[in-house]
Amino acid sequence: MTDSLLPPKTGKRRLFALGFASPGPYRKWRNGLKIIPWLIGTILMDFSQRFDSHVQRVDAWLDRLLREAALSDQTDQGARAVVPADISPSTPENNRLVTAMHYAATNGGKRLRPVLVIETAALFGVPPDACLNAAAAIECVHCYSLVHDDLPCMDNDSLRRGQPTVWKAYDEWTAILAGDALLTLAFELLSRPDTHGDGDVRLALIATLAKASGASGMAQGQAMDLAASALSEHVQLDLRHVKLLQALKTGALIEAACLFGALLGQGDANAKASLQRFGQALGLAFQISDDLLDQEGNAQVVGKATGKDTAAGKATFVSLLGLEGARRELRAALEDANAALSEFGARADPLRDIATFIAQRQH
Amino acid sequence: MTDSLLPPKTGKRRLFALGFASPGPYRKWRNGLKIIPWLIGTILMDFSQRFDSHVQRVDAWLDRLLREAALSDQTDQGARAVVPADISPSTPENNRLVTAMHYAATNGGKRLRPVLVIETAALFGVPPDACLNAAAAIECVHCYSLVHDDLPCMDNDSLRRGQPTVWKAYDEWTAILAGDALLTLAFELLSRPDTHGDGDVRLALIATLAKASGASGMAQGQAMDLAASALSEHVQLDLRHVKLLQALKTGALIEAACLFGALLGQGDANAKASLQRFGQALGLAFQISDDLLDQEGNAQVVGKATGKDTAAGKATFVSLLGLEGARRELRAALEDANAALSEFGARADPLRDIATFIAQRQH
Repeated sequence: MTDSLLPPKTGKRRLFALGFASPGPYRKWRNGLKIIPWLIGTILMDFSQRFDSHVQRVDAWLDRLLREAALSDQTDQGARAVVPADISPSTPENNRLVTAMHYAATNGGKRLRPVLVIETAALFGVPPDACLNAAAAIECVHCYSLVHDDLPCMDNDSLRRGQPTVWKAYDEWTAILAGDALLTLAFELLSRPDTHGDGDVRLALIATLAKASGASGMAQGQAMDLAASALSEHVQLDLRHVKLLQALKTGALIEAACLFGALLGQGDANAKASLQRFGQALGLAFQISDDLLDQEGNAQVVGKATGKDTAAGKATFVSLLGLEGARRELRAALEDANAALSEFGARADPLRDIATFIAQRQH
Repeated sequence: MTDSLLPPKTGKRRLFALGFASPGPYRKWRNGLKIIPWLIGTILMDFSQRFDSHVQRVDAWLDRLLREAALSDQTDQGARAVVPADISPSTPENNRLVTAMHYAATNGGKRLRPVLVIETAALFGVPPDACLNAAAAIECVHCYSLVHDDLPCMDNDSLRRGQPTVWKAYDEWTAILAGDALLTLAFELLSRPDTHGDGDVRLALIATLAKASGASGMAQGQAMDLAASALSEHVQLDLRHVKLLQALKTGALIEAACLFGALLGQGDANAKASLQRFGQALGLAFQISDDLLDQEGNAQVVGKATGKDTAAGKATFVSLLGLEGARRELRAALEDANAALSEFGARADPLRDIATFIAQRQH
């Protein structure tokens, strides 16, 4: 499938469409980045293997969780104790919802946020398997946001990662309910005892995720973006508005993923502040590189000299700062991200490489 | 506004449309029920005053919470520390989301679920003010579900409680995001320390609400209902399917509200099981009386001898059991609800009266 077959993509969508998706997404880093050997236990493992193993773990865990969600229809005795025990809710119409959730959560995402959870938690010695519920929860929120953003009344996207979007593969109501249920599942996951042994940590994860995804976070950013699109003929957002919008729409969840690691690892206030700053800078870098990709990706399409966002009259880092200005801003964000990691020394190298990778996506 | 101006309403919607809505919803009980004096402290208060005071408390609390959500845009330093401090996010496009959430959560609901939380918690001596976050959280979930259910691709309702539905008053994307953000707010509320002093209780509330509203609860019920509607020409649901569907779509959240009281009051396993059983029976009674209202309400409309659900070929308790059969089933559910309360003695009288009120709505 080529880009020209894709409907216009906005924001971070393009990153998925341009080959960062699985299989083996991090293996591609080998070409773009120097290969740095890293000792885990007694095994020498390069980063691509390290990150691929995270992605595989997260993929398998999400697959398992969604299958369990389908099964719980048959085993959960709570809500349906009023109905006869021999009824099987596993008829197609009952499973449609969970099937759509599974489709939404397991169709080849690159798992940036779960990998950030795992790698920030690793700074505090937390093994990857102990991060899986938290990592899956944040990915469920990310996936739900994509399902809803793709709807006809929002971005009206028919394809994502080369596959029909949920509303296209099923229908609009299934997509809305599948998104709702994925969001709900995220909080259910975080409440589970096996997410972390300390209940206060689980509550902090829940509060962090809720703040990052709701009216003071991601949902607000998406609302601002849609309002700005509706108003773009009349109102031109300035750089501060674009930064705020993106910090909410994309940045908040990336920041939460980094904070999740500090929470799981029960880091001190300094560590939390550092990882929060790292996440904020990373989110900004992510969005600037995304705008650069939108501009430069489209420039390669014959007869289409400017990017889709610019063509739509949308204010982006590139439209407001120019290509060079945006690149400068990106370098500054990358420096800020790296500076935030200084206290962690070499242990934070995987995080530095994630930042570098995100920044280098402009090339 | 008369019923004939309303678009066809399904399920529990009719109850809202038939005068149970504010102002002073419980005051009307005086006509239908005997007035039972009740001692709270040293004040003799009748039930209508008691419940009206609950409703007013919940209304005021939701209003306050949603106003705070708007304000947090200006004070929260988390996600937007990357933007200059002097930027004001309180421009109209930023507040659209929270304004829509406020509209959705404060347009005259009867607050059945919050009242159930308060009254079940009262069995354990928990004062109403100590229930408000939990009560508001469950109402946020209820309101979000109405906002999404009203969408054109679902029930396509333009009016609710005499006001334009959220998608009609704003637009579809605002309605979807406002619903998402209300759902998210519910979990954020439950994570707050002032929801309950014991973190384990807060986690249990979160787990209970998530299970009741997601893929094994309310969202599943709505998906089953929509699937059944789409299939109704080909497939006729039997009584067990209808019971399961309604237990999920409506019952799960009512059951969760009753369980919330036991959790807030840290009742023992027996008390929890009793209130869960009460909630299940109450949810069933609620839906049967709703089907009866749909049938009998429409019978009063000239030239429309059968109810809307029946006309739509929808399987309901009335279509499957007949009027008399449905009334018998309702009486059985009411008896079951009352039986579940036996261990609480006279303290549970307010709950018995809620059950009686719901059952008597057939008249």
